[in-house]
Amino acid sequence: MKFQNEWPAYAPNDKLNTYIKGLFQNLPIFASLKDDTSVLKVYAGIERFKFYKDVLIFGIGGSSLGGQALYALNNTSNTNLHFVDNIDPAAFIQKINTLNLKNTGIICISKSGNTAEPLMQLLLTVQQYEAHTINWQKQCAVLTEPNDNALRLFAQKHSLLTFDHPLDIGGRYNVFTSVGAIIAGLCDFGFAKFRQGARDLIQQADLTELLQGAMHTAHIHKKQNINQSVMMVYSNYLELFSEWFCQLWGESLGKQHKGKRYGLTPVRALGAVDQHSQLQLYLDGPRDKFITFITVDNHTTTNSVMPVNIDHKAFQTLEGKTMGDLFKAEEKGTFDTLKANGCLLRNISLSKLNEYELGQLMAFYMIETIATAYLLEIDPFDQPAVEESKIRAMEYLTKGK
Amino acid sequence: MKFQNEWPAYAPNDKLNTYIKGLFQNLPIFASLKDDTSVLKVYAGIERFKFYKDVLIFGIGGSSLGGQALYALNNTSNTNLHFVDNIDPAAFIQKINTLNLKNTGIICISKSGNTAEPLMQLLLTVQQYEAHTINWQKQCAVLTEPNDNALRLFAQKHSLLTFDHPLDIGGRYNVFTSVGAIIAGLCDFGFAKFRQGARDLIQQADLTELLQGAMHTAHIHKKQNINQSVMMVYSNYLELFSEWFCQLWGESLGKQHKGKRYGLTPVRALGAVDQHSQLQLYLDGPRDKFITFITVDNHTTTNSVMPVNIDHKAFQTLEGKTMGDLFKAEEKGTFDTLKANGCLLRNISLSKLNEYELGQLMAFYMIETIATAYLLEIDPFDQPAVEESKIRAMEYLTKGK
Repeated sequence: MKFQNEWPAYAPNDKLNTYIKGLFQNLPIFASLKDDTSVLKVYAGIERFKFYKDVLIFGIGGSSLGGQALYALNNTSNTNLHFVDNIDPAAFIQKINTLNLKNTGIICISKSGNTAEPLMQLLLTVQQYEAHTINWQKQCAVLTEPNDNALRLFAQKHSLLTFDHPLDIGGRYNVFTSVGAIIAGLCDFGFAKFRQGARDLIQQADLTELLQGAMHTAHIHKKQNINQSVMMVYSNYLELFSEWFCQLWGESLGKQHKGKRYGLTPVRALGAVDQHSQLQLYLDGPRDKFITFITVDNHTTTNSVMPVNIDHKAFQTLEGKTMGDLFKAEEKGTFDTLKANGCLLRNISLSKLNEYELGQLMAFYMIETIATAYLLEIDPFDQPAVEESKIRAMEYLTKGK
Repeated sequence: MKFQNEWPAYAPNDKLNTYIKGLFQNLPIFASLKDDTSVLKVYAGIERFKFYKDVLIFGIGGSSLGGQALYALNNTSNTNLHFVDNIDPAAFIQKINTLNLKNTGIICISKSGNTAEPLMQLLLTVQQYEAHTINWQKQCAVLTEPNDNALRLFAQKHSLLTFDHPLDIGGRYNVFTSVGAIIAGLCDFGFAKFRQGARDLIQQADLTELLQGAMHTAHIHKKQNINQSVMMVYSNYLELFSEWFCQLWGESLGKQHKGKRYGLTPVRALGAVDQHSQLQLYLDGPRDKFITFITVDNHTTTNSVMPVNIDHKAFQTLEGKTMGDLFKAEEKGTFDTLKANGCLLRNISLSKLNEYELGQLMAFYMIETIATAYLLEIDPFDQPAVEESKIRAMEYLTKGK
């Protein structure tokens, strides 16, 4: 992972560096990276589900997005994972109806074990299995905190295979734990390499270099009212990573402190597609965005375009070139144009798209999020505002209105 | 389509109303709604491609997003459409390798006919067919402007089935034209009903009511520096519609005028999922957003949850309820919480999710976009800033750097 920051370097911030170093030692997210034993047990424990042709994954938010990002990068197993995170009834029925339930596993993930969405998904699905007189208990596993929550009680009653969600790690920070492991194990994603990437980042990094982005973000958010952080990924396989980023970033930094409201809206963009849909706005629109390009140095190679024998410049430019050549030219053309027009910009490049580099990238974004929160003096681990909405929803549901 | 606007009504703006009325008469997008003949010819003309098991759709931006939105809503044909809009080499190879090319059609869509991405996709794919000695010319169709562009010359040389892109309608406004028709025809999407929805909106609407959102958006963008427009859709089937919106909105409104920069960043969100990832930011973060809920009154019904026989409140709340009950309760809980917390808000509700209502919605957003641009005194039809990036990209590609 390499950084190209289009701004003058910030001087070391000793307080910030000390704080982050302390987190590397003590914060459960990072401390848990020291020993692979428990997560690799989950990875192995889910292996028997790989004998199903399909596996439904129920969960929402932090119980789903990290796993989706891993699954998008790598799937060499023969098992198809279906992440059902929403409760749209039509989409739910459509999905269930396409599957042969006899050969479909169910995994229900909920940190608290009381979240309405995955419980609804699970209960309706189980009713379908029972309607087809399938012995679903053998095909179903749950992952939740080890306490008397609803999902855990359900698992106990039906003797389901059960995995623990760590008690002290929030949903949006859990991708290196059992939650990532259970998905990785199902799709042969190299989870040990993934964690090694994160571990190496923490152990070897020059903290001041690593925290340049956080220092810059906090600075431009406070001083220049920049209120959007655009992540433009130049890889289809990183789209779900950018969705994961949106939750991590939005939920951690959208906070009030001393009567001020903080939070840069995360905006995900996909290169080269969004050059054709969003670039006009980035170039001519308000200068309210900090744009990060996430790029991959070494792409898979396609064939080269053979001569078309038509006298037109559009063909002559492409002849002899691969799709990767065009992809890189577009990426560089867009970056350099944004730069030439004075946009706030950086490039984070991965040498290759693999488990190790993704582990580095996801750990980096956790660190950057936490460091930015520190500089804004807000708590990156809570989400105090959403409780009201949940209470209202349950009231409306109970009253049938 | 009904509106619930959480702000005091704006008085009629006669100049704006007259301008929009004039567009309904004269602007090619709207004028072309008067007669279905030519688009239904395209709809029928593509029918023979429905005999393929799979069809690859090449195109990017406006040549892809509208079609994707239609396909997401309705597919009753046995043909699978594969929208390949990006030029990620690994994803491209993966896609081509999963298909049986003998039974796979190719449709290449490019308004200008000279766009590098779809030409690269087309040329590399044709090479694959030739490597398998498949007579691809019969399986391939193109849609482009009727002039001497590269794609047209290619189609002429190989005698490909060819459809015309209208000359006077820009890519992001083309969903009601041949571009929408070609996709609709492949997936049995009711294109006549879709256009009827748009036509009825234009003919029957009280313009002042229809333009409330545009007047509000322009007002809060200019006076209160609101710089983000969040579209939160409560339907999985509207996710691709929200992607289409992002292009229409971003590219039309991201403009400079008299030294000022305009453009609210379009932010797409999916309910209920983004309640678990973005709601904290919307509630406690900066008040820089105008949030539109797009909801559906009548959802498909699932079974009700049967008694679980476990003494836990989380189960008792769900028992006897359908997934739709929960979905509606979550939607209302979130809307009311945002409202109670003083967020800028409205709800656009569709009675059902069908072609007619989607036609209304897409036409509405075109009108709202154009009206907002009028009030900001910018041109909603051009995209002057992106040319520089294209030139750079082609230079880098030619130089091989």
